[in-house]
Amino acid sequence: MNKFMELAIIEARKGIENEEGGPFGAVIVKNGEVVGKGHNQVLKRHDPTCHGEMMAIHDACENLGTFDLSGCEIYTTGEPCPMCLGAILWANMDKVYYGCNIIDTAKIGFRDEQFYKMSSPQEKAKFVKELDRDACLKLYDRYVKITGKANY
Amino acid sequence: MNKFMELAIIEARKGIENEEGGPFGAVIVKNGEVVGKGHNQVLKRHDPTCHGEMMAIHDACENLGTFDLSGCEIYTTGEPCPMCLGAILWANMDKVYYGCNIIDTAKIGFRDEQFYKMSSPQEKAKFVKELDRDACLKLYDRYVKITGKANY
Repeated sequence: MNKFMELAIIEARKGIENEEGGPFGAVIVKNGEVVGKGHNQVLKRHDPTCHGEMMAIHDACENLGTFDLSGCEIYTTGEPCPMCLGAILWANMDKVYYGCNIIDTAKIGFRDEQFYKMSSPQEKAKFVKELDRDACLKLYDRYVKITGKANY
Repeated sequence: MNKFMELAIIEARKGIENEEGGPFGAVIVKNGEVVGKGHNQVLKRHDPTCHGEMMAIHDACENLGTFDLSGCEIYTTGEPCPMCLGAILWANMDKVYYGCNIIDTAKIGFRDEQFYKMSSPQEKAKFVKELDRDACLKLYDRYVKITGKANY
């Protein structure tokens, strides 16, 4: 078995034995070395964003002192939900290895699959609405004037 | 102009004036009252997950002492990226108001639109791979035995 996935499982077990959240652990690897790890702590921290992958990203960013995890790979016990996949992309990681897929994860009661469907343009339009665009465009203009260009 | 969107813009301006990150602020409202707010701090915190909506969710969860933001609405200066939309769904919010859309946001240099495309099953399959599923299924089984059922 892959040694990094084994570490991700060990992380996940820590979380479930202590009732911190779901069975999800993740490890981030750069050049063959672990640079970050974490497990689901949604229940412990009263925070729906504390998924295993998110905690591993926080840990790796703190360890490396950057928001840019280019060249890193992530190993995670469950296929990333839309939130975690988005975080992985913002972190510039380009390789994800997962154990259980989102159908497996749905079977134990989590809504990842449903949330991918709700993220489609058609479904999203039902609950995500535009408001005061002109005022917000002025804010964007102000930002461009300050920075000259986008900086990340 | 909507008073909550105005507050979201004020939040965003705080962030850009102090060079903490992009022009993105968010406010979470429950029963007509602000219960959380935040702005993008990706640069300040060296963390790619610190988007305005995420910071507002952290703040609301801390203020209300729960990961469940049912009955809350979020007002955000830019249409949520896949990560933030996922976080909004995990938090059980069912109403999102945004100012600028993801095309506007792409024009000032951010990759939200690209990341929605990369989250489709076909695109995702290029960089997201299954590994050691059987070992991870055993972990899921262990979780179900501990909790009896999924608990969030």
